[in-house]
Amino acid sequence: MDADQILVGVDIGGTNTVIGVLDDTLTVLGTCRIDTAAFPGAAAPGHPAPFLDRLAGAIRELAAATGDGRRIGRVGLGVPGRVDSECGVVLGASNLGWRNVPLAAEMARRLDRPVAIDNDVRLYLLGEAIAGAGRGYRNIVCLTLGTGMAMSLMLDGRLIRGHNYNAGEIGHDPVEGNEWRCNCGQIGCLETIASATGIARLARAKVREGAATLLARLPEPQRLSSHDVYQACLQGDEVARSVFAFVGATLGKKLLTAICLLDPEIVIVGGGAAAAGPFLLDPLRSFIAGHYFQRERPPKLCAGQLGDEAGVVGAAYFAAVHGRQAEQELLPGKEGFRLPIGPL
Amino acid sequence: MDADQILVGVDIGGTNTVIGVLDDTLTVLGTCRIDTAAFPGAAAPGHPAPFLDRLAGAIRELAAATGDGRRIGRVGLGVPGRVDSECGVVLGASNLGWRNVPLAAEMARRLDRPVAIDNDVRLYLLGEAIAGAGRGYRNIVCLTLGTGMAMSLMLDGRLIRGHNYNAGEIGHDPVEGNEWRCNCGQIGCLETIASATGIARLARAKVREGAATLLARLPEPQRLSSHDVYQACLQGDEVARSVFAFVGATLGKKLLTAICLLDPEIVIVGGGAAAAGPFLLDPLRSFIAGHYFQRERPPKLCAGQLGDEAGVVGAAYFAAVHGRQAEQELLPGKEGFRLPIGPL
Repeated sequence: MDADQILVGVDIGGTNTVIGVLDDTLTVLGTCRIDTAAFPGAAAPGHPAPFLDRLAGAIRELAAATGDGRRIGRVGLGVPGRVDSECGVVLGASNLGWRNVPLAAEMARRLDRPVAIDNDVRLYLLGEAIAGAGRGYRNIVCLTLGTGMAMSLMLDGRLIRGHNYNAGEIGHDPVEGNEWRCNCGQIGCLETIASATGIARLARAKVREGAATLLARLPEPQRLSSHDVYQACLQGDEVARSVFAFVGATLGKKLLTAICLLDPEIVIVGGGAAAAGPFLLDPLRSFIAGHYFQRERPPKLCAGQLGDEAGVVGAAYFAAVHGRQAEQELLPGKEGFRLPIGPL
Repeated sequence: MDADQILVGVDIGGTNTVIGVLDDTLTVLGTCRIDTAAFPGAAAPGHPAPFLDRLAGAIRELAAATGDGRRIGRVGLGVPGRVDSECGVVLGASNLGWRNVPLAAEMARRLDRPVAIDNDVRLYLLGEAIAGAGRGYRNIVCLTLGTGMAMSLMLDGRLIRGHNYNAGEIGHDPVEGNEWRCNCGQIGCLETIASATGIARLARAKVREGAATLLARLPEPQRLSSHDVYQACLQGDEVARSVFAFVGATLGKKLLTAICLLDPEIVIVGGGAAAAGPFLLDPLRSFIAGHYFQRERPPKLCAGQLGDEAGVVGAAYFAAVHGRQAEQELLPGKEGFRLPIGPL
């Protein structure tokens, strides 16, 4: 990439979309957000055009404001759904109501720049792998807990996408004894427990049952969020902590299966609910430590380091290397990083 | 490989070792077995030498008998344990009592030929992928049920080994409510149920409980094998079938997690217990069909096609391509197959 160009990374979420402008060391020069949910076009099946127009406008504005006169080189987009990154098509994204949207071409037309797209959790992992908690590792399991829950995998330096671009969808693996109905229509999916939504739901149930918890004193306890549960944990609330402990143990069982299967070096936990830090990570760690048969070789387990920017950094990086099969060669890490690729 | 050379593939098991001689189309020219367990050296920690001497002798004899005058090109060995295939070292193989055995160098010295080694279940998968049920697929989950149980993975055409060469060890993932002690020392491992050993143990428990089953009429019901359980199934024995149904459902839950995580095209079931065919595969299939959230895109699930020869074919193939990172480029499949590599 020319040094007089900038990269754009975008993390499209069902609620918010984060846009970042980055230089060729993957330093974030500026970010902004647009409200995905405010665009009926983003959520109405088959009509993403108004949202994409707004997104293109916001990208141009942010690039002009923070790019110091440099023009946009490449653009990467992370999408919460099933993405064929080679063809640049979003096969399905239920939170956005999209199906078979040729997103890369649509955005390339609007911006007149090359655009690459992939699944958001995969690009989150890529961001953490190149510039965050995953620097220097080649075998990474990443899990994000937000509205939903998913994993992404880097094995031997390569992102794993699966035959139908569904790899990582462990959020829809059923949990024994769990009767909750998932947005996907199934009963008992892991993400009905192990997600920000699941944490909030479990805590609301405790309040309804009359449990002695600070959460009952909130102005609208039946609208409490996973962040409220975290805040209660900080104040020593045992009920709130028990919710995280239950989520950690439930998630821990599935994560243990993934660890037995894949033997990763590191597990990175991200997404909104990961902000709960030790209240979630400690029960997870203790479950894995107590049950993994390779006691002397457990993987490291930690929270992501880049927060919201992981998806943006990953998307920009993916855009820069897309088509060059260079994902793994550029790893490990970002110390003194500079994109080792020629002019676009 | 020169056409005047033959390949040797070996599948070392805790009980038997299968040796095969193959030509450059991976056609098996001949096989023989040696009794691993008869060699105290094979099982005594740190003393594999007598077994390796016998193995080298058997390889030379079989090559002389079936090779039609051609000399041995390369030799591949599958080992039931944790194998560093790059360094050629068996890090640990509990059924053999081996620890840090430089097996590739030891055998290369004995045979004066290049030797490559890897985990046996990985080479089983490679054999099925190149010449069996996995031909033409690039995303394969393989599971073998024998004395123990393990999975191996080919994702996007590449074998997955894991950071500590432990990928696939889902046999030691604990099953909720299972109190059985595993050979690994842990309580409740999946392989205490989902293995030939586990199937036999469950059936013996049924007999002890006084269940109405043909198995109780065996001369020594407390020494019955998984093969006996299969035979009883063939005769319509409901208790025997219920054992397979239980094993299928228990294994199905863990397999479903693997499928959600990896999105494979095909799941291949191999090892001794796979001979039970529909009695095991039908409960597995029905569990996956009933619970996989991608109902319209389930992976194919089938038994291996090569039986005992899968490991031998995979080992020979691995020997031929080892060091050339060509595993994935030679896939798919074996129609008119000829090893596309130069002189050794």
